[in-house]
Amino acid sequence: MDVDWDNFLWPYNEAVRELKVKFRSLRQSFLTKGEHSPIEFVIGRVKTVDSIKEKMTRRVISPEVIETDMQDIAGIRIVTQFVDDIYKVVDLIHERDDMEVVEERDYIKNAKPSGYRSYHMVISYTVYLPEGPKKLIAEIQIRTLAMNFWATVEQTLNYKYQGAYPDDISERLRSTAEAAYQLDEEMSAIKDEVQEAQKIFTKNKGKEKS
Amino acid sequence: MDVDWDNFLWPYNEAVRELKVKFRSLRQSFLTKGEHSPIEFVIGRVKTVDSIKEKMTRRVISPEVIETDMQDIAGIRIVTQFVDDIYKVVDLIHERDDMEVVEERDYIKNAKPSGYRSYHMVISYTVYLPEGPKKLIAEIQIRTLAMNFWATVEQTLNYKYQGAYPDDISERLRSTAEAAYQLDEEMSAIKDEVQEAQKIFTKNKGKEKS
Amino acid sequence: MDVDWDNFLWPYNEAVRELKVKFRSLRQSFLTKGEHSPIEFVIGRVKTVDSIKEKMTRRVISPEVIETDMQDIAGIRIVTQFVDDIYKVVDLIHERDDMEVVEERDYIKNAKPSGYRSYHMVISYTVYLPEGPKKLIAEIQIRTLAMNFWATVEQTLNYKYQGAYPDDISERLRSTAEAAYQLDEEMSAIKDEVQEAQKIFTKNKGKEKS
Amino acid sequence: MDVDWDNFLWPYNEAVRELKVKFRSLRQSFLTKGEHSPIEFVIGRVKTVDSIKEKMTRRVISPEVIETDMQDIAGIRIVTQFVDDIYKVVDLIHERDDMEVVEERDYIKNAKPSGYRSYHMVISYTVYLPEGPKKLIAEIQIRTLAMNFWATVEQTLNYKYQGAYPDDISERLRSTAEAAYQLDEEMSAIKDEVQEAQKIFTKNKGKEKS
Repeated sequence: MDVDWDNFLWPYNEAVRELKVKFRSLRQSFLTKGEHSPIEFVIGRVKTVDSIKEKMTRRVISPEVIETDMQDIAGIRIVTQFVDDIYKVVDLIHERDDMEVVEERDYIKNAKPSGYRSYHMVISYTVYLPEGPKKLIAEIQIRTLAMNFWATVEQTLNYKYQGAYPDDISERLRSTAEAAYQLDEEMSAIKDEVQEAQKIFTKNKGKEKS
Repeated sequence: MDVDWDNFLWPYNEAVRELKVKFRSLRQSFLTKGEHSPIEFVIGRVKTVDSIKEKMTRRVISPEVIETDMQDIAGIRIVTQFVDDIYKVVDLIHERDDMEVVEERDYIKNAKPSGYRSYHMVISYTVYLPEGPKKLIAEIQIRTLAMNFWATVEQTLNYKYQGAYPDDISERLRSTAEAAYQLDEEMSAIKDEVQEAQKIFTKNKGKEKS
Repeated sequence: MDVDWDNFLWPYNEAVRELKVKFRSLRQSFLTKGEHSPIEFVIGRVKTVDSIKEKMTRRVISPEVIETDMQDIAGIRIVTQFVDDIYKVVDLIHERDDMEVVEERDYIKNAKPSGYRSYHMVISYTVYLPEGPKKLIAEIQIRTLAMNFWATVEQTLNYKYQGAYPDDISERLRSTAEAAYQLDEEMSAIKDEVQEAQKIFTKNKGKEKS
Repeated sequence: MDVDWDNFLWPYNEAVRELKVKFRSLRQSFLTKGEHSPIEFVIGRVKTVDSIKEKMTRRVISPEVIETDMQDIAGIRIVTQFVDDIYKVVDLIHERDDMEVVEERDYIKNAKPSGYRSYHMVISYTVYLPEGPKKLIAEIQIRTLAMNFWATVEQTLNYKYQGAYPDDISERLRSTAEAAYQLDEEMSAIKDEVQEAQKIFTKNKGKEKS
């Protein structure tokens, strides 16, 4: 199939742009109210054409079904300070009428064997094009700073080894996942104190670094 | 009344941010498809607290009704190359489900005595806050580059003279409005040629200055 | 020659980004001081690879000398309200130590036969890369809103006709250039009044639409 | 003294904007070359007026000397993946001619008693205002993701307790600092592997999430 990739990807770019603005604004809403924000930062990306083609081959996805079967063409990542914050963000997404949750997987309660932890939601979202509305699929990953740190490193290594890690790397990744997990646990223990202090802090300090 | 302005204005800031992203993306949609975009550029602003207070006094608007009666707290301006483009943008806005047109005034077919020309739409738009959805009012002004040039100058002078122009200024503004109108007329005459050429241009030149 | 275009163009992208921030900030400096800004808005772009290749062929520029001989790979456009503002911007650029003017052409005092009016400056500017500093060439075009309006249209038509306009188009372009020139003349006549009023306006209205 | 804060802070805003663009571009330079970037992300802020006043009182700084004695009015934070990256960033800053290092403190080799780790540089940087060049002081903090995570939490708590932590909080902060330190150690052990893989990854995956 000869896909016009620029036109195919355009709506996904549009969706990522809008979703980034919406979740970043949500963060600012909490801060403006002088409250702890469950959202620490938000990034987003659209899969590259090479990456889409590679996945089509690897997963045997035909061009006709990429829109429904490749759910991470548009990807949003929401990073939180605390594990609890992840579930607050999940609730906020469920309550919105401008996006619909079509699937979700909790890799925090059920970490992957590799040590990967994250909450994944697949949503349906509408963008408005010159020719009218278009509903599309996007993936939202929600994780703590520590989970994100580990996952970034694992993704890089995985790309090199394609999942077939040498034993020493595999061992290193596990002990790094453990250190990240410990940091999350320590953070959870101090969470109430920090959130209480954040209210005072935000009220008085106003605008944050950004 | 003692208004917490930061919290009051927050949703309007949010709306302006989202609307700017949406209309700027619409422009890019046209260009990506290799078509003439009826949108040349988009700007937006939230009225300042001083400006809101001044208007409350001048128009005798009580705090209880500012949300409904002051329709330009959130303001978006869409600037076009050609007069025809204005009506294409108006149609595109009517067709969207993510904003509802509640009022519109055509100051192009019926220019104000001052010479002011523009198309005004008042829309209702929903933003999502931590506490849930909030519907608010925003104003969209649509005008050509020449109308915009004149209006910017007139707004500045009006602020100084509060509408009571000395005769010479009044005369100058009228002849400037006439020059702006002539430029729009000349542009209209050349419109089909330019739009045809733009399709070729966009397809080959790709990314624009921005 | 086999050019790695991503790497070749990178420093130009960097320069355009920095120059846009610098000139936009300059505008804000004037407004923060409650003064008329000679800069109305700033845009920038890096020439596309296709565009560079086409110009290399047309002007017979060999790969070895594109860095010095193709002076508009990085392009900045500064748009002003009044003709006088153009020369204020020119002065401001000459006074800076972070860029050096290597060439300039005044197409306002000496309009091109087509009717094109603009002030062009070629500057030398240093960006810092991982491997150290790199000096490169960039072009700055300075024009009024009316000149910019006309030039945008002319550039589009020129791309289609490659300079060989049919007589009627040629005639239309001339009368449009005349209308743009008249608008600039009218504006110049009202300039002192507007700039005076802008000081009052900016002081009281604070943040602008952007 | 009656300071016009908007005008006083303006050049600092300008400096923060330029420095953010410059360091973010440096990150992109590494990625465009297909290399590991020692910069993971960059944020910046200008101290709020309330915060400046509070510090003037606490540290007994008179208005005449704030420009020289309050070195963190403009603040940039550069966050890295690995501890080694911090020193690479330090070297890159020393090599640049567009900023001059006037002071530096290594709180990594010499952590503060609280557990705080970071590398601080004070630089002198020139911005160009309508009235000419202005040299000002800015602070750059360089730290790993784990150090940054801990420091953000500590800063919040410190604001509440003003350094006088109850014993249990103090103990919690220490064990959290230890967990963050462990994560950095684990990361350092895996660093060469990750950086090697990143080169392959960046070359093939192209544009990153941002």
